[in-house]
Amino acid sequence: MHPTLLHSVAPPHPAETVHDVDLALEYPRVRDATAILRAPLTAEDCAIQSMPDASPVKWHLAHTSWFFETFVLEARLPGYRTFHPQFRVLFNSYYNAVGDKHPRPERGLLSRPSLDEVFAYRRHVDLGMQALIESGALRDTAVRALVELGLHHEQQHQELILTDVKHMLSRNPLAPAYHRRASLHPTRARSSPDWLGFAGGMTRIGHRGEAFCFDNELPRHRVFLEPFELAASLVTAGEYAEFIEDGGYLRPELWLSEGWETARAARWSSPLYWERTDGARAIFKLSGFDALDTAEPVCHVSYYEADAYARWAGARLPTEAEWEHAVGEKLPAGNFLESGALHPTADTAVEDGLRQCFGDAWEWTSSAYAPYPGYRPAAGAIGEYNGKFMCNQYVLRGGSCATPRSHIRASYRNFFPAAARWQFSGIRLARDA
Amino acid sequence: MHPTLLHSVAPPHPAETVHDVDLALEYPRVRDATAILRAPLTAEDCAIQSMPDASPVKWHLAHTSWFFETFVLEARLPGYRTFHPQFRVLFNSYYNAVGDKHPRPERGLLSRPSLDEVFAYRRHVDLGMQALIESGALRDTAVRALVELGLHHEQQHQELILTDVKHMLSRNPLAPAYHRRASLHPTRARSSPDWLGFAGGMTRIGHRGEAFCFDNELPRHRVFLEPFELAASLVTAGEYAEFIEDGGYLRPELWLSEGWETARAARWSSPLYWERTDGARAIFKLSGFDALDTAEPVCHVSYYEADAYARWAGARLPTEAEWEHAVGEKLPAGNFLESGALHPTADTAVEDGLRQCFGDAWEWTSSAYAPYPGYRPAAGAIGEYNGKFMCNQYVLRGGSCATPRSHIRASYRNFFPAAARWQFSGIRLARDA
Amino acid sequence: MHPTLLHSVAPPHPAETVHDVDLALEYPRVRDATAILRAPLTAEDCAIQSMPDASPVKWHLAHTSWFFETFVLEARLPGYRTFHPQFRVLFNSYYNAVGDKHPRPERGLLSRPSLDEVFAYRRHVDLGMQALIESGALRDTAVRALVELGLHHEQQHQELILTDVKHMLSRNPLAPAYHRRASLHPTRARSSPDWLGFAGGMTRIGHRGEAFCFDNELPRHRVFLEPFELAASLVTAGEYAEFIEDGGYLRPELWLSEGWETARAARWSSPLYWERTDGARAIFKLSGFDALDTAEPVCHVSYYEADAYARWAGARLPTEAEWEHAVGEKLPAGNFLESGALHPTADTAVEDGLRQCFGDAWEWTSSAYAPYPGYRPAAGAIGEYNGKFMCNQYVLRGGSCATPRSHIRASYRNFFPAAARWQFSGIRLARDA
Amino acid sequence: MHPTLLHSVAPPHPAETVHDVDLALEYPRVRDATAILRAPLTAEDCAIQSMPDASPVKWHLAHTSWFFETFVLEARLPGYRTFHPQFRVLFNSYYNAVGDKHPRPERGLLSRPSLDEVFAYRRHVDLGMQALIESGALRDTAVRALVELGLHHEQQHQELILTDVKHMLSRNPLAPAYHRRASLHPTRARSSPDWLGFAGGMTRIGHRGEAFCFDNELPRHRVFLEPFELAASLVTAGEYAEFIEDGGYLRPELWLSEGWETARAARWSSPLYWERTDGARAIFKLSGFDALDTAEPVCHVSYYEADAYARWAGARLPTEAEWEHAVGEKLPAGNFLESGALHPTADTAVEDGLRQCFGDAWEWTSSAYAPYPGYRPAAGAIGEYNGKFMCNQYVLRGGSCATPRSHIRASYRNFFPAAARWQFSGIRLARDA
Repeated sequence: MHPTLLHSVAPPHPAETVHDVDLALEYPRVRDATAILRAPLTAEDCAIQSMPDASPVKWHLAHTSWFFETFVLEARLPGYRTFHPQFRVLFNSYYNAVGDKHPRPERGLLSRPSLDEVFAYRRHVDLGMQALIESGALRDTAVRALVELGLHHEQQHQELILTDVKHMLSRNPLAPAYHRRASLHPTRARSSPDWLGFAGGMTRIGHRGEAFCFDNELPRHRVFLEPFELAASLVTAGEYAEFIEDGGYLRPELWLSEGWETARAARWSSPLYWERTDGARAIFKLSGFDALDTAEPVCHVSYYEADAYARWAGARLPTEAEWEHAVGEKLPAGNFLESGALHPTADTAVEDGLRQCFGDAWEWTSSAYAPYPGYRPAAGAIGEYNGKFMCNQYVLRGGSCATPRSHIRASYRNFFPAAARWQFSGIRLARDA
Repeated sequence: MHPTLLHSVAPPHPAETVHDVDLALEYPRVRDATAILRAPLTAEDCAIQSMPDASPVKWHLAHTSWFFETFVLEARLPGYRTFHPQFRVLFNSYYNAVGDKHPRPERGLLSRPSLDEVFAYRRHVDLGMQALIESGALRDTAVRALVELGLHHEQQHQELILTDVKHMLSRNPLAPAYHRRASLHPTRARSSPDWLGFAGGMTRIGHRGEAFCFDNELPRHRVFLEPFELAASLVTAGEYAEFIEDGGYLRPELWLSEGWETARAARWSSPLYWERTDGARAIFKLSGFDALDTAEPVCHVSYYEADAYARWAGARLPTEAEWEHAVGEKLPAGNFLESGALHPTADTAVEDGLRQCFGDAWEWTSSAYAPYPGYRPAAGAIGEYNGKFMCNQYVLRGGSCATPRSHIRASYRNFFPAAARWQFSGIRLARDA
Repeated sequence: MHPTLLHSVAPPHPAETVHDVDLALEYPRVRDATAILRAPLTAEDCAIQSMPDASPVKWHLAHTSWFFETFVLEARLPGYRTFHPQFRVLFNSYYNAVGDKHPRPERGLLSRPSLDEVFAYRRHVDLGMQALIESGALRDTAVRALVELGLHHEQQHQELILTDVKHMLSRNPLAPAYHRRASLHPTRARSSPDWLGFAGGMTRIGHRGEAFCFDNELPRHRVFLEPFELAASLVTAGEYAEFIEDGGYLRPELWLSEGWETARAARWSSPLYWERTDGARAIFKLSGFDALDTAEPVCHVSYYEADAYARWAGARLPTEAEWEHAVGEKLPAGNFLESGALHPTADTAVEDGLRQCFGDAWEWTSSAYAPYPGYRPAAGAIGEYNGKFMCNQYVLRGGSCATPRSHIRASYRNFFPAAARWQFSGIRLARDA
Repeated sequence: MHPTLLHSVAPPHPAETVHDVDLALEYPRVRDATAILRAPLTAEDCAIQSMPDASPVKWHLAHTSWFFETFVLEARLPGYRTFHPQFRVLFNSYYNAVGDKHPRPERGLLSRPSLDEVFAYRRHVDLGMQALIESGALRDTAVRALVELGLHHEQQHQELILTDVKHMLSRNPLAPAYHRRASLHPTRARSSPDWLGFAGGMTRIGHRGEAFCFDNELPRHRVFLEPFELAASLVTAGEYAEFIEDGGYLRPELWLSEGWETARAARWSSPLYWERTDGARAIFKLSGFDALDTAEPVCHVSYYEADAYARWAGARLPTEAEWEHAVGEKLPAGNFLESGALHPTADTAVEDGLRQCFGDAWEWTSSAYAPYPGYRPAAGAIGEYNGKFMCNQYVLRGGSCATPRSHIRASYRNFFPAAARWQFSGIRLARDA
């Protein structure tokens, strides 16, 4: 993928002002960005599902359109004609209130609709949305909220397109690349972590202000924190390699019990996508196989591995409240989707303070994904967006190299099961002060 | 089991003073209580494992002795002779630091050692412990701590003996009873919940004082709570039946996504041990099948069911901090193991305030089992007791009708995976004030 | 698919003289026939694997080329350049002697090589084969035998392309059709079976003559048969529907024990691809959904169902020796791939004697697939073609509507596990005289 | 077990005259022999099920009584009182015509009825049978046939008691022994196989005469055999060890495809019960661990291993017709249950001709278990005894060291799935003449 292409879809304004921008401009920008992500892929690439957790690209392309059709156009655009009666079931992800859904593990069985038909579906929905927008419907706050939600939803799937394609390509012995990118000169790793201290005390977390956020970021509320420290930057691949060399995957005392069982059953001995070739470590990226740069942040680790690494390092993972408190009012800046790297890059910053807290790799926190005090899911089917997943998942913060820049913010709560490794998930250490 | 027998093993002093009591007296009391629990069972009853989560009674009897042998006698009693060299592996539950362990799902394959041999093992260990105690070793704080831990560990297994036997008996079409007990006259259910209000604010949770506690109850620390309300008593079987009649198991909008999938895959349509016979509801108890008393607390529900019920009732589950704050300095009193009922009983109390918070049924909280700020596991193998399970489990509070009275306290944190139903686990509602 | 296209690839000579025909002419004919089968399919259709038993069309297209490359060109064409070094592993089906193979259930994970690249591979191999043929290499008997085997191998995969595509399309809720075809007027079913008597006695089965056969058809050998009778034609869908109406799937006494367990676990209540729509029976064909023609032969039944049906009908399945003895020297004629129907058609013949013994549907026999007395597999990797599968499979005879006409003969032994249903497999009844 | 005890239950008359013996005498003899087999076992030993294929001894003890109660007493003894209404379901093995059955994998969940109760059940049935016999009911041919069938059924379960107990004990790290038995001096292995030639031609197999046989041994019928050779004695453990040393478990070309997959998935590298201790081979027997005697017949091999060994040895397995033809009219003599060895012993015979064809180890044949031409299962529930298992199983011949002597005959057809290893199953080689 050409970084220039990606760059062209980046919004010209900071994320926190999305609320004020013209959704009429934002809609085509976000939708086009999805289509651009697909550009390097063939129809065959877009049809395949490499594991139940991942979806075919074609499904992502259709489902994001389904979202606008189902939640916006059918309810709000008079005379709107549904594109295909069976798509309501076929591209429903998990909304029980909408009705039946095609089984998730069978998304990869569908050669039809073809990729061309899916793009026709997208165009049909886009024309509908254009008509809706031109009708002035966005003046209705409820409509506006749904469209804005649909765009953020689409951005989530932009990231998933990349992580799911990466997984699919990695399962192919031919190791095809998604995009071309020169190997970088290995960067020089910074030495052992700089610790930044935080006094804790009564603080507040959760989204503030009027701009868009998901319901799980609300309400902003008080929490009490004991004093703590955070590492200034992410754990590097080189540091993680030391953990491996030190028998990290062979020492049960470093692991959560469930993590140890999982790692043994799945025969994990390194992060996902690491390989050994002739003694040297290689890593599969969206640009294909490459030598491991020890200075780059480690990613594609599970919660279990993040936790075990932290224990080995004499530290722990941060809670999400610590993380959000430490980030404070920092605006998102870093290695996002728009950089075109599509891989974490080494921390070469020279300034003091918390670095790499946005972009590069999602940061596992020790916080189970749970409702904030006073949390209320949205009414209706949209209420299924977040709340029903608040069980047996862990919160990740900060976005990754596959996250659109305008999508992330300090209060953003991503979440995955403890065993998930195919996301760009990395590690920041914490410790008690 | 004769309630009188059980009564005879109850300690004559309140739980919170265990620390001051003579461990030399407490040791035989606790050990005998275990043996008494086994009295109604045949050797065949004690050999069988009905599911991987449960263990044969014989294994519990041996493992609790193994604990004293491995952690106390081998290290602290000069000249102690290990009873059998292979028992170190055979009866190791999950201590990786101790070495290999027999696979958990295969505990039921062992007809040998026989139940008689296991009791010989218990006597051998008891003689060793007697020698150790007589040697004055309890004056050593470390030894004292290990012995005390061993006794609390044994009490945990007393409860598991009852829940595991109940499960095993329930899988037998002959529905054998563990003990005999007259059916109670159905009690009259109290009407819809009395709500008790709590102002919240800065509070502290965690164990205080010098008496025994597990490491996961420490350190006592500050938390901030928003105002909340708790139901004065536990959800009754009758109230839960209303949830079922209202389609509770058929309405996905009431459930966590994972709970819905679990319930559908396992075809749950009621709590564990509920049956329908000729239109009437029956329930399998340790005393055999009985008509359901709608006034008794519902139990044997999973976290998923507790959460779904709460949502249906327009409420939520309490956090463990709310629960502990509300209980405050209340001393454990209620329907414990020693009552001999071995089943939750209806709330017939007339006093105001929080009722049934100890005994009857463990209360699911919405809190994922996680370390308290500043938590440090014990050093060595004993450090595996709690910390390594702090992942994908939920905290339960208050003890049950199968918990020894001297075992529980307000700060006690029990924990089970969200799908577990074979414990005496029930529901107390909470809501935002 | 246009029948005319198919017709154009039918060899102009009867199958039994293949041996004498010019392989130089036969090679492009068979190879083109494979490509023509693919014509109605998109690249996406060709990439998907709908179950481990089935393979993506793309894989079939590549594997058949791999066969010529690996077993003919690499050994016999000086200077042959392998198309791609990794294809040796990627498209090896099950030849351990050739080396590693890509795991069968993961054939559907490969978006690359693209369908275009696979066709480039086919052309590369075809050019190599053309060079080999022009070099006069076919005068070498060993080369000739390998090429002939390769062509019969390719024909087997032509049938699999159709059965595998049918399965994949059937899993798509949109029910796409492979080809268009007018619904036939329902034909009138013949009445209950005409029984044809055979005296049995000493006879011979196995391939005779010089023409091509697979090693499993040899050696021709003596067998002794008791007198028996065979039904003149195949069991019809209407007859099978009577079995269903009579509780066929609900009566364990009609079933093999393993069949009963399989049918219950998989919830079978009809042949594969039968559906009920508004009370009427519909059937999914390669031409899409259609009303069930009760006069057409039933197909897509497992061995278990064929056996249960036969027991219900007071009959049994024939042994393969009975079948081959009864067919005798009949030449293959019937509803094959070339007819373009791609579905069994009703028996409308008026002549006496055994009908439908070739084409329409493979006929399950009661014979376990086993070596003939004196069987010797070929030397080397080619020896893995048949012999190693002679365990827990049952022999089917006669070919189907998806079998190329020139591929079948009276001694041909097809074989599948008892639970397989996605082949065009039907039923002919037998009974003791 | 004391061999003398076993000896006392051996019938004083040759097996082939069972038909003429007094069933009134035979009944208590066979029933007592079952009870004697149980003598060395505790109630705990008898309650456990070590895998779904095996049953608890207690279940065998009850099920054999259930057979007489269900098929004889309930129908034929006026006024017979069923021992326990639920036993009809609990101890039904697989007779669908009798009604429901307790799930096979859950036989080990039943601590009740206790072993004592099961023996009370046996006595109750025995008293009923005594009354029936004294009433003269045996003069009725149908009754006589059922009683005789019940006794042969009981003998089958005698063998299963031993193989199932052996498996259960082997899964116990304490390796308890069923009986005590001195290690034999290693015997000297005979050199490579003596081949015995057979001319083949038209022959007959199947039971002849009036004495008892199972329905699957009928009808006696003609088969044609090509000339063949059989090894005079069974493959020894030493010969099998050579196969292992020669990479037998690492060379796919020696294996059936399904066998290779099974062996790799289960990580087989030797017969069941073989272990390596300090470089030497040990073997678990019913008498505990012992050094491997290389001269003893190998046993506890699957069909896959038997087949692979034969291929490695340049031979094949015999068909069941070859085996039966070769054995001819030989009467059963050999190392049976009554010898008390409960393990195959070396062939030390000096006479020429076929040796070890009875006793020691069941001999895998290459014949799939199928009905003989003209086979008719018995009417009613008893018809489920054999016929419904004629699918995906292989025939074994000759009996083993755990088979009662009076139970076996030349026409006897045992059958197990190809992967079964817990029976005393061994190998005799065959080859084309």
